[in-house]
Amino acid sequence: MGKAINVGIVGTQFMGRAHSNAYLDVGYYFDLDAPPVMKAACDINKNDLDAFCKRYGWQTQETDWKKLIERDDIDLVDIVTPNFLHKPVAVEAARKGKHIICEKPMAMDAQEAREMRDAAREANVRNMLAFNYRRVPAVCLAKKLIEEGKLGTIYHFNAVYYQDWQIDPNVPYLWRHDKSKGGSGAHGDMNAHIVDLGRYLVGEISSVCCAQEVFVKERKKPDGTMGQVTADDAAYFMARFREGALGVFLASRMACGRKNFLRFEIFGSQGAINFNLERLNELEYYSLKDDPAVQGFRNLIVTEAVHPYIDMWWPPGHILGWEHTFIHEVGDLIKAIEKGTDVQADFHDGMRCQQVIDAAIKSHDGGKWVDVPEE
Amino acid sequence: MGKAINVGIVGTQFMGRAHSNAYLDVGYYFDLDAPPVMKAACDINKNDLDAFCKRYGWQTQETDWKKLIERDDIDLVDIVTPNFLHKPVAVEAARKGKHIICEKPMAMDAQEAREMRDAAREANVRNMLAFNYRRVPAVCLAKKLIEEGKLGTIYHFNAVYYQDWQIDPNVPYLWRHDKSKGGSGAHGDMNAHIVDLGRYLVGEISSVCCAQEVFVKERKKPDGTMGQVTADDAAYFMARFREGALGVFLASRMACGRKNFLRFEIFGSQGAINFNLERLNELEYYSLKDDPAVQGFRNLIVTEAVHPYIDMWWPPGHILGWEHTFIHEVGDLIKAIEKGTDVQADFHDGMRCQQVIDAAIKSHDGGKWVDVPEE
Amino acid sequence: MGKAINVGIVGTQFMGRAHSNAYLDVGYYFDLDAPPVMKAACDINKNDLDAFCKRYGWQTQETDWKKLIERDDIDLVDIVTPNFLHKPVAVEAARKGKHIICEKPMAMDAQEAREMRDAAREANVRNMLAFNYRRVPAVCLAKKLIEEGKLGTIYHFNAVYYQDWQIDPNVPYLWRHDKSKGGSGAHGDMNAHIVDLGRYLVGEISSVCCAQEVFVKERKKPDGTMGQVTADDAAYFMARFREGALGVFLASRMACGRKNFLRFEIFGSQGAINFNLERLNELEYYSLKDDPAVQGFRNLIVTEAVHPYIDMWWPPGHILGWEHTFIHEVGDLIKAIEKGTDVQADFHDGMRCQQVIDAAIKSHDGGKWVDVPEE
Amino acid sequence: MGKAINVGIVGTQFMGRAHSNAYLDVGYYFDLDAPPVMKAACDINKNDLDAFCKRYGWQTQETDWKKLIERDDIDLVDIVTPNFLHKPVAVEAARKGKHIICEKPMAMDAQEAREMRDAAREANVRNMLAFNYRRVPAVCLAKKLIEEGKLGTIYHFNAVYYQDWQIDPNVPYLWRHDKSKGGSGAHGDMNAHIVDLGRYLVGEISSVCCAQEVFVKERKKPDGTMGQVTADDAAYFMARFREGALGVFLASRMACGRKNFLRFEIFGSQGAINFNLERLNELEYYSLKDDPAVQGFRNLIVTEAVHPYIDMWWPPGHILGWEHTFIHEVGDLIKAIEKGTDVQADFHDGMRCQQVIDAAIKSHDGGKWVDVPEE
Repeated sequence: MGKAINVGIVGTQFMGRAHSNAYLDVGYYFDLDAPPVMKAACDINKNDLDAFCKRYGWQTQETDWKKLIERDDIDLVDIVTPNFLHKPVAVEAARKGKHIICEKPMAMDAQEAREMRDAAREANVRNMLAFNYRRVPAVCLAKKLIEEGKLGTIYHFNAVYYQDWQIDPNVPYLWRHDKSKGGSGAHGDMNAHIVDLGRYLVGEISSVCCAQEVFVKERKKPDGTMGQVTADDAAYFMARFREGALGVFLASRMACGRKNFLRFEIFGSQGAINFNLERLNELEYYSLKDDPAVQGFRNLIVTEAVHPYIDMWWPPGHILGWEHTFIHEVGDLIKAIEKGTDVQADFHDGMRCQQVIDAAIKSHDGGKWVDVPEE
Repeated sequence: MGKAINVGIVGTQFMGRAHSNAYLDVGYYFDLDAPPVMKAACDINKNDLDAFCKRYGWQTQETDWKKLIERDDIDLVDIVTPNFLHKPVAVEAARKGKHIICEKPMAMDAQEAREMRDAAREANVRNMLAFNYRRVPAVCLAKKLIEEGKLGTIYHFNAVYYQDWQIDPNVPYLWRHDKSKGGSGAHGDMNAHIVDLGRYLVGEISSVCCAQEVFVKERKKPDGTMGQVTADDAAYFMARFREGALGVFLASRMACGRKNFLRFEIFGSQGAINFNLERLNELEYYSLKDDPAVQGFRNLIVTEAVHPYIDMWWPPGHILGWEHTFIHEVGDLIKAIEKGTDVQADFHDGMRCQQVIDAAIKSHDGGKWVDVPEE
Repeated sequence: MGKAINVGIVGTQFMGRAHSNAYLDVGYYFDLDAPPVMKAACDINKNDLDAFCKRYGWQTQETDWKKLIERDDIDLVDIVTPNFLHKPVAVEAARKGKHIICEKPMAMDAQEAREMRDAAREANVRNMLAFNYRRVPAVCLAKKLIEEGKLGTIYHFNAVYYQDWQIDPNVPYLWRHDKSKGGSGAHGDMNAHIVDLGRYLVGEISSVCCAQEVFVKERKKPDGTMGQVTADDAAYFMARFREGALGVFLASRMACGRKNFLRFEIFGSQGAINFNLERLNELEYYSLKDDPAVQGFRNLIVTEAVHPYIDMWWPPGHILGWEHTFIHEVGDLIKAIEKGTDVQADFHDGMRCQQVIDAAIKSHDGGKWVDVPEE
Repeated sequence: MGKAINVGIVGTQFMGRAHSNAYLDVGYYFDLDAPPVMKAACDINKNDLDAFCKRYGWQTQETDWKKLIERDDIDLVDIVTPNFLHKPVAVEAARKGKHIICEKPMAMDAQEAREMRDAAREANVRNMLAFNYRRVPAVCLAKKLIEEGKLGTIYHFNAVYYQDWQIDPNVPYLWRHDKSKGGSGAHGDMNAHIVDLGRYLVGEISSVCCAQEVFVKERKKPDGTMGQVTADDAAYFMARFREGALGVFLASRMACGRKNFLRFEIFGSQGAINFNLERLNELEYYSLKDDPAVQGFRNLIVTEAVHPYIDMWWPPGHILGWEHTFIHEVGDLIKAIEKGTDVQADFHDGMRCQQVIDAAIKSHDGGKWVDVPEE
């Protein structure tokens, strides 16, 4: 058995919980040389940190992320902090030769993302951007079908990401409503996911044209005054893919009734695929090769042993949940570290995604199409 | 061009309207020698009759069905009366050499149904039992797939027919709530349809075991007194098919929220089929012959030119409605009369269906399985 | 009883059939003073005209549309010709004082549409643009819910229209593939419908940004040479509505597996609505007013007597088909003519829709947002 | 912090894995005095046991279940053995004063189940029957709605459990195909689940009438000879509930295309509910109290903080998987042990379920209805 990978996590909120679950469970399902060790957790808030470590079993604590990175007993740094800290932590971790997994969105802008990517490349460490939806078995199956040519030439990639947690106008004004502090709203949280899926499944995006909107223009601050909302509630954009497909990316936090509704529809010359994250165990697949009298969208329950990742789980029809994607992600990362192989999505993917978002924002500001940089 | 078929209809209520629509439209879609002529309508209620003829274009009137049958200018008698009149009208019409189409349920019991069938056979007239759901294109496609062996050996035929129009306990007491007057409740209206579909798609039923129930035991009469409800609100039965399949037939008028929800699920050794009347343009089909990685229920939109009846309708995806089934039914009947060929479902089918219902009722009364007669 | 309206139809193809069905059936379902009379049909192709009149019962024939318009016995002119003829026929019909119904898309461009509208206004004749999807009962119900404020302020109108009848690269080159002859491809056939629905349900569109694409760049002509395809296979655009909503309109004839898939999703501050034309009897509705524990999209089967148009049809759960929309359309038009009242969608609506399409095309050519004219 | 509960598990196969996962994860999500300790595992097969303990972290081993039970350091015995061992292990564990959780089906027959229940009662130990589907949040929500009277009087409980893992006739003959060794086929594996759900949601079942079937009559043994299949492939039964509802329970392992498809439909006088285990995060709910124009089945995504168990999981729309039910089950059990309170489903529930199954088998053999014992 190989040496266990020691993990140091920076950040203890929502994603910290999801990643903790993955580290805990990954050894049950993946054949690893050794399960990862939850060695150290870091947060500037000591109370949060105590509660987090106690509940999730992180063995030691740091309140300064730089100290965590300097520790010799840490092999892998997991970055689940607020967005603005991603770059400094990642660049420093790379310099110390740590492997890195970083939550999305990758950075405040593409320039930061590039620095992170370059630092990781230079240090030759494993680097993963946590686009966990790449590891939904149904999405992996979609990827496989596309690679096998089952869809032929792709004509359309139409994706939406609908949530409604900002729908209540009484949601109070927070730093996140200020574009200068929280960065892009729907873009970073939501479009980042579907842009990555678009790149993963259909390829590079060459140009975009975007429209953003704030629907609730001001919200009440804790002090009773009204704050101007500048971060977008919704961000829509059209896109042209390098290989010729035409697509849209629609993200909104004001889509009443939708909770975590991420849908993509891919149409090709030979077939089509639909996916919906709220039914993530299913994939709809249409093939022009079927007998014309019985052509129809097949509802695949992606829980068969022949499907990606499923051989390690349960019998057919026993569905997986959202957080299983993190187990897949961490499992693949640990194996990559063990074997010294690459793993995706990596920091290059994260940077490319950020470039698309940046181009979209620029497009919105200019009211016209903007090219995504070649690299 | 051949001679037009003159139709005489007996009855002017709900089914009279649906059949009228079919006679009106059939010539638009079917290639007939001549469209049928709506020659005469009959009802004992003169007001209803006047309104019916005016609205739907029936050319002449009769208030005595015997007179209608005696008329030399009538070729086809259409029976849409209350149930108890089916037998006398049909037997008399057959004796006069008229072709006959009769609404379901066929008769008050299997004995009456047999008399009707024998009279029609003896007179050698075209006889059709109006099981219109056989002529939903999706159902015809299901039949075709089964006949082609796509499902292999059939193991299960599970059908339900859910409605809820009796759910309100304030629905007043009517003759139909009295078993001695209205005959079986859910059996005749609802099970008759799914039994016919079971016979059509899977074959003869050899034995049944039934449970009936009245949930609202009494209802208020117009005079303010309470009437005892004896006709069943729900009638469930299990059935064994001659060829070995096991099935259920569940009919209820107390299925809250379901309006005209007729669903069947057929499972065979090689595939499966699902159908839902409220989405009658769709058929779900599963094939074990598909590549295991992409096996799933296909949702077929049965609106392609290669599908049954559709070449006479609209382009793909332009859906049909409920009353189109009557157009198909009448079109097939008129063509059969023109050509002197048989047409199904015929009175024999109606009788066989009635025998199953009779056996179910008997089974309910006895609390055990009952064989359906061999013929 | 009032005088019957005499109809003269110009054109005998697909839409000619659908309209004929409506004229035939409308008197069965609508309470009209008198059902319309199918008085005259016109086509330059005598063979087509003969077959059309025989099958659908048009009483007399013309091969020159000007002659049809001059006839004193024609009250209503129905224009179902190719697009380029809409304007001359409509303007001339208006001048002769005929009422007019015209198929969509209204005209070759907004300027033509304006001439048609102005001619009809000047002549003070009833004028209807045949946006039949306004008369799907579920769409009418959506309209009603929005008008009642059930959705609150509308934030998003996201519509797609997917078909796949151009997916086969062996579909031969036709005049319609030439932009200079057939006009816009997906815009006119498909976006026209969803733009009208957007205007009907959410209000005027103020600006658009469009991307069009041809995926199969050349197709084989009958003479064996290849023709360059210039009419768009797909036309996507983003739109801002006057009242603040952000939306998209996505039309493609290359959406593999989709036949006549028109979906719209409307999100408001208080609720949401989804609709899919292939399940046109259903409407999904979400209300923030529901108890939080049981909030969810309700699948309404729009076949209740309380729903628009349904009181004239069948009992609950007995679904309607695509061509019923034409019956509703014609019924409303005949009643408007009888009563001298306005009816919608009218030529003004058609013109406004054309203005949006024109702006979209201009936007595509310029690569940036374009305002829709104020009127 | 209280004392940690030490668990000893007997059995290491499929359910052993699922339970191990629950013990591992439960402390992350439930607020427990102390997470359970995976103290000892037992299997007669040493290789299986070694692999199981290594992978899932069980600290010590036993190959004789009696020794495990005798250990003083074991607080809770978890029985995931083959069916025939449930009774001896459970009765002995009770005598030693151990708390017990036992997988379903509870026993070989109701008599055994009674002995188990009585032993647990006498020893006054916590006893849980692992009907994990009671702890699907959507099922808990259904229970809550029913208890609040939202469905009114229940008229129907129609449940199916479809799987297809026996569909291939080349599946070899195993001990489980022999009724005398494996006990009932579809009854124990599948009907046990839906009978428990029926009892949980609607109440006690008073009588049943059953039909069982073997479709593949013989299968090939490893030695090349054919074995006669006597355990049922499918077991259907109708049931009457004590409070008046009429229902069916349909279980088949030959339902081609269905993997783990457990659906129930509950119709009451005021509303209805549908559930499907393959979409276990959703619940369909219909209320007669809704405005008639907008009554429809609501699709509830049961992932809101107000829904049962969800406050401990993820944000809305982030779905749970199948094995989460075991975490809920074990969490509730540990809390009950900590607090000394009762927990359900308990051995009494298991016994009652077994009595229904026994009555169904008896009914099948006799071809008529059989009463379920009063206790």
